[in-house]
Amino acid sequence: MTGKNDLMSPFLREGKSLILAYDQGLEHGPSSDFDNRNVDPAFIVELASRAGFNGLALQKGVAERYYDGKVPLIVKVNGKSSLSKGEPNAKQNCSVEYAVSLGARAIGYTIYLGSLFEGDMFREFGAIQEQARERGLAAIAWVYPRGAAVQNDTSKEVVSYAARAALELGADAAKIKYTGDSQSFAWAVRAAGKVRVFMSGGPKAATDEAFLAQVRGAADAGATGIAVGRNVWQHQDPLSMAELMKKVLFENLQVASIKTT
Amino acid sequence: MTGKNDLMSPFLREGKSLILAYDQGLEHGPSSDFDNRNVDPAFIVELASRAGFNGLALQKGVAERYYDGKVPLIVKVNGKSSLSKGEPNAKQNCSVEYAVSLGARAIGYTIYLGSLFEGDMFREFGAIQEQARERGLAAIAWVYPRGAAVQNDTSKEVVSYAARAALELGADAAKIKYTGDSQSFAWAVRAAGKVRVFMSGGPKAATDEAFLAQVRGAADAGATGIAVGRNVWQHQDPLSMAELMKKVLFENLQVASIKTT
Amino acid sequence: MTGKNDLMSPFLREGKSLILAYDQGLEHGPSSDFDNRNVDPAFIVELASRAGFNGLALQKGVAERYYDGKVPLIVKVNGKSSLSKGEPNAKQNCSVEYAVSLGARAIGYTIYLGSLFEGDMFREFGAIQEQARERGLAAIAWVYPRGAAVQNDTSKEVVSYAARAALELGADAAKIKYTGDSQSFAWAVRAAGKVRVFMSGGPKAATDEAFLAQVRGAADAGATGIAVGRNVWQHQDPLSMAELMKKVLFENLQVASIKTT
Amino acid sequence: MTGKNDLMSPFLREGKSLILAYDQGLEHGPSSDFDNRNVDPAFIVELASRAGFNGLALQKGVAERYYDGKVPLIVKVNGKSSLSKGEPNAKQNCSVEYAVSLGARAIGYTIYLGSLFEGDMFREFGAIQEQARERGLAAIAWVYPRGAAVQNDTSKEVVSYAARAALELGADAAKIKYTGDSQSFAWAVRAAGKVRVFMSGGPKAATDEAFLAQVRGAADAGATGIAVGRNVWQHQDPLSMAELMKKVLFENLQVASIKTT
Amino acid sequence: MTGKNDLMSPFLREGKSLILAYDQGLEHGPSSDFDNRNVDPAFIVELASRAGFNGLALQKGVAERYYDGKVPLIVKVNGKSSLSKGEPNAKQNCSVEYAVSLGARAIGYTIYLGSLFEGDMFREFGAIQEQARERGLAAIAWVYPRGAAVQNDTSKEVVSYAARAALELGADAAKIKYTGDSQSFAWAVRAAGKVRVFMSGGPKAATDEAFLAQVRGAADAGATGIAVGRNVWQHQDPLSMAELMKKVLFENLQVASIKTT
Repeated sequence: MTGKNDLMSPFLREGKSLILAYDQGLEHGPSSDFDNRNVDPAFIVELASRAGFNGLALQKGVAERYYDGKVPLIVKVNGKSSLSKGEPNAKQNCSVEYAVSLGARAIGYTIYLGSLFEGDMFREFGAIQEQARERGLAAIAWVYPRGAAVQNDTSKEVVSYAARAALELGADAAKIKYTGDSQSFAWAVRAAGKVRVFMSGGPKAATDEAFLAQVRGAADAGATGIAVGRNVWQHQDPLSMAELMKKVLFENLQVASIKTT
Repeated sequence: MTGKNDLMSPFLREGKSLILAYDQGLEHGPSSDFDNRNVDPAFIVELASRAGFNGLALQKGVAERYYDGKVPLIVKVNGKSSLSKGEPNAKQNCSVEYAVSLGARAIGYTIYLGSLFEGDMFREFGAIQEQARERGLAAIAWVYPRGAAVQNDTSKEVVSYAARAALELGADAAKIKYTGDSQSFAWAVRAAGKVRVFMSGGPKAATDEAFLAQVRGAADAGATGIAVGRNVWQHQDPLSMAELMKKVLFENLQVASIKTT
Repeated sequence: MTGKNDLMSPFLREGKSLILAYDQGLEHGPSSDFDNRNVDPAFIVELASRAGFNGLALQKGVAERYYDGKVPLIVKVNGKSSLSKGEPNAKQNCSVEYAVSLGARAIGYTIYLGSLFEGDMFREFGAIQEQARERGLAAIAWVYPRGAAVQNDTSKEVVSYAARAALELGADAAKIKYTGDSQSFAWAVRAAGKVRVFMSGGPKAATDEAFLAQVRGAADAGATGIAVGRNVWQHQDPLSMAELMKKVLFENLQVASIKTT
Repeated sequence: MTGKNDLMSPFLREGKSLILAYDQGLEHGPSSDFDNRNVDPAFIVELASRAGFNGLALQKGVAERYYDGKVPLIVKVNGKSSLSKGEPNAKQNCSVEYAVSLGARAIGYTIYLGSLFEGDMFREFGAIQEQARERGLAAIAWVYPRGAAVQNDTSKEVVSYAARAALELGADAAKIKYTGDSQSFAWAVRAAGKVRVFMSGGPKAATDEAFLAQVRGAADAGATGIAVGRNVWQHQDPLSMAELMKKVLFENLQVASIKTT
Repeated sequence: MTGKNDLMSPFLREGKSLILAYDQGLEHGPSSDFDNRNVDPAFIVELASRAGFNGLALQKGVAERYYDGKVPLIVKVNGKSSLSKGEPNAKQNCSVEYAVSLGARAIGYTIYLGSLFEGDMFREFGAIQEQARERGLAAIAWVYPRGAAVQNDTSKEVVSYAARAALELGADAAKIKYTGDSQSFAWAVRAAGKVRVFMSGGPKAATDEAFLAQVRGAADAGATGIAVGRNVWQHQDPLSMAELMKKVLFENLQVASIKTT
């Protein structure tokens, strides 16, 4: 869905997009992912604009208290803690109307595809997607396959299923894991059709090159961009890392030619 | 319910109907059913009109982004992924109102008859059917028996139960599996009463003749038509295959006289 | 609640009532209970008026397509299939408003007393009963005890509990199983107080005399009437059988004097 | 909450109250608690006024068909049968609005404190209490501790917890079991604070003296009154028994001086 | 969120706050926590104003009958009893609108982070928080980690997770347990960001000094204050104890210099 009516437009620059994700405080807890610097949402919000991100994803509470209006906002409207060990489920904690009041241009919603509670999330996302449409917001699905039938959540089959589910359910964009190589990821991108695909950054990669190679692979596969958190704000030099990511994404920089610190 | 007030009219030609089903991306995943060609909804939507289908069944997201208004639209308003392994259930992810806004003339809803969650689907379908009536849409039930008591979901007893449930619950049409022979399928058609019966195409048959014989058998049994997906769009020559199906259905072609490629 | 304000009035003749039940297509499936004749709702609807029944109980879909307005209509607004093997529960699939639009003068609702889901049915019936009152419809409870504590669902204790639950919950009439003898059934009738009791016909009896003796016993016990299905429409001569039932019920015919075919 | 605004006023005489409870038909079934006389609600309703009770507690259906307006009415808006053996839960089957239409001055609601479904009842009672306040009805909580942690539901600890829960949740009155002695029951009364405490009559006591001693003990402990059923209407002479109870409650009669038949 | 728009303002004095918590009657039962004096809500309400508390937390029923308007009111809108032994969950029993009618300036809500029902509480709190915002009330989250993954609910990791969850979900303040030392508690305070942190008082400490040292530690860590119950109203001299707590909190008194009785 390209063109004027693309609800993802606010998040795009030349059709590409680099989104900063910062919902890990709820999903993983502060001690798991944060240090004294990045535990502070003000640091992240400032980083988002300084580093030229095209979007910033926050839970309602962080958005309400820290969002400065500089980078287009995605409010994640569901979430769960890593302390809850049952069958994966994440329920809506923020209304679409409230997200709008916080300045959101998109809502984010996690779907644990394959969970026994998959149907609850399909239903909830379905209603949210329609409310988002009414208000001119994009609906971005974080699709994470889980459950007994998911042996490997980065396999081509599973990742492409996540991408396709986002299309079938009416998302404007899908945040999915990387498959490990560009060719198989291209199948996921193709399965998503007109839905824009964002590679999920995931945990901090061993080396910058390793992560940038993933970005390169996703871009080559046709992804619109990446939604990244830890690989930026856990980096010792987040601005430089973001700069490299932008070069890969927007300037078609090849990874072999990258010099990292 | 024949005549002017038949909500299925948009999908009928001489009282018969050939519907193209394309919700497999959600139900089975792209890697299970799709290749590089049929993974693209644009290919399917174009195929639907070029091949002269009388209806096209899509999930909301695919309808929203690809539907071209040429073939009457059925929006499937529930669904589940094949990764979710619990007791079968599929929850509504699209409102009837939204389906209307996408151009739907009918809604489709899957009922897993015999599931422990059967009652939830009965309730949800009941409400959707009433909303569909209010807006002049047909309500088509995909009735798939499942659960501990269902040993054989193509037996005469089970298939006719599916057909009858569609009648009792107020559907305008029922999509049910073929029993294997025309005589037993006729019992299912009779059990459905005034509800129009569509044979579910199912997985790609071993040979074209085998599939066309099923179509012949269903038609002879009094079915209104078939709702087919994989046997068309997984075929190397979908247009020819569709042509043969139409000959069987609309021109009473006998299968023995069919030449296939 | 006799007299002008009795919501059951449409179903009464001289204070008695013979109701034809035809929801078995959903409850038991067509292959279990139907033959080529009685699988056709048109046959049943015509039979209801020709045989002089005082009421006809149908699910929404059958009522919508076949009801002819001749015999007062009861729309069963919940139901379940016999394929679903979990703890008994049956959820509302038809709104009271919709039942009214179909011409209903009463709604029917099954309560599985003793089920772990009893409370859900109490709540749902409670709301339906109030909606029915608002619109001037009777609320008829099909009360069927089930669950771990129900060893014998035709015992005096269990049947009278069913009857009483209907009274306590605000039903206008209760459909309950026969206890086997008139004296114990009289206790159930007494427990129901002002709520009208209908003996549930149940499966086809071995002989006509056996069934008519039950009708006699229920009538002698003070029941308002019977709600019968299979013992009429599975009979080779439904009209004659209905005639005999009417004689027992309305003309106080004793069973010993009955000649059956 | 004494004085003009006390919603319990309709049920009080000199600040005391004797309530006749008759929801056992639903809770225990007719064969468990009733005989040919007291199975008839008309007998009970007449008894309530003839014996000078200050309140009468009925389920909606019995109230609707038998209530004569003479004694202030409490409509029990939830309940469950003794046939349902799962974790205790009782769901609302009567709206507050409907209870008002039946003439209720109070609603009654059972909370199984300690049940795994306790939270559902807290939530439901919470909403009902607010609706009752809006319409000027009292909200009376039947608080019965149940579940794995409740070894002895007449212990001082457990009974006082029941009383306190009624206060915390906003009830106007609490119906709780007797602890066995006046001193420990006084702790429950104190825990209830301004909430009026009614001793639950329970099953028929072995002797009249035994029961009247409980009434005496509860009154001495500061209870507002008792809510009694079986000890009155299972009594061979209900009027005399009620008379004795009134003497104990209103005239401070000591039990040692009571002559019973 | 400091300044004029801080919804916590009514509860602050010089940016600090001492809140008296009295929901233990519901949470623990009267026999567990109360004696003849503090079982009386009137004693507590008077204590709150006499001792100069900045807030008072009560369940709806206690607030409705005892609150005197002198100290800003927090109505706890959910809760559970200690008799209920399943997976922790506490459901809303008081609407935000009703809390307002009782004079509340804030609502309190318990979230059992890590419970299998965490998602239900996230959703419920999410809706309550938005309703509170609309009416100008603060939303205070009691965040108590529970469940299989919570080995130690006072560890730095777990307590800081609780604090962070409150921020992410949009709370104005978080009531969390003390970690045992000021340094680790400072991490929780930092994780909470702009959300005000209240140390939960917990059970009566062995000595006054022990408890005051906790208060000192929390204050040094940057907490806004403490929410205390048992350590005050179970104290033989609650006023003196409160006085000492205020000195620690507002006058920066060091614990070594405290003389207790």
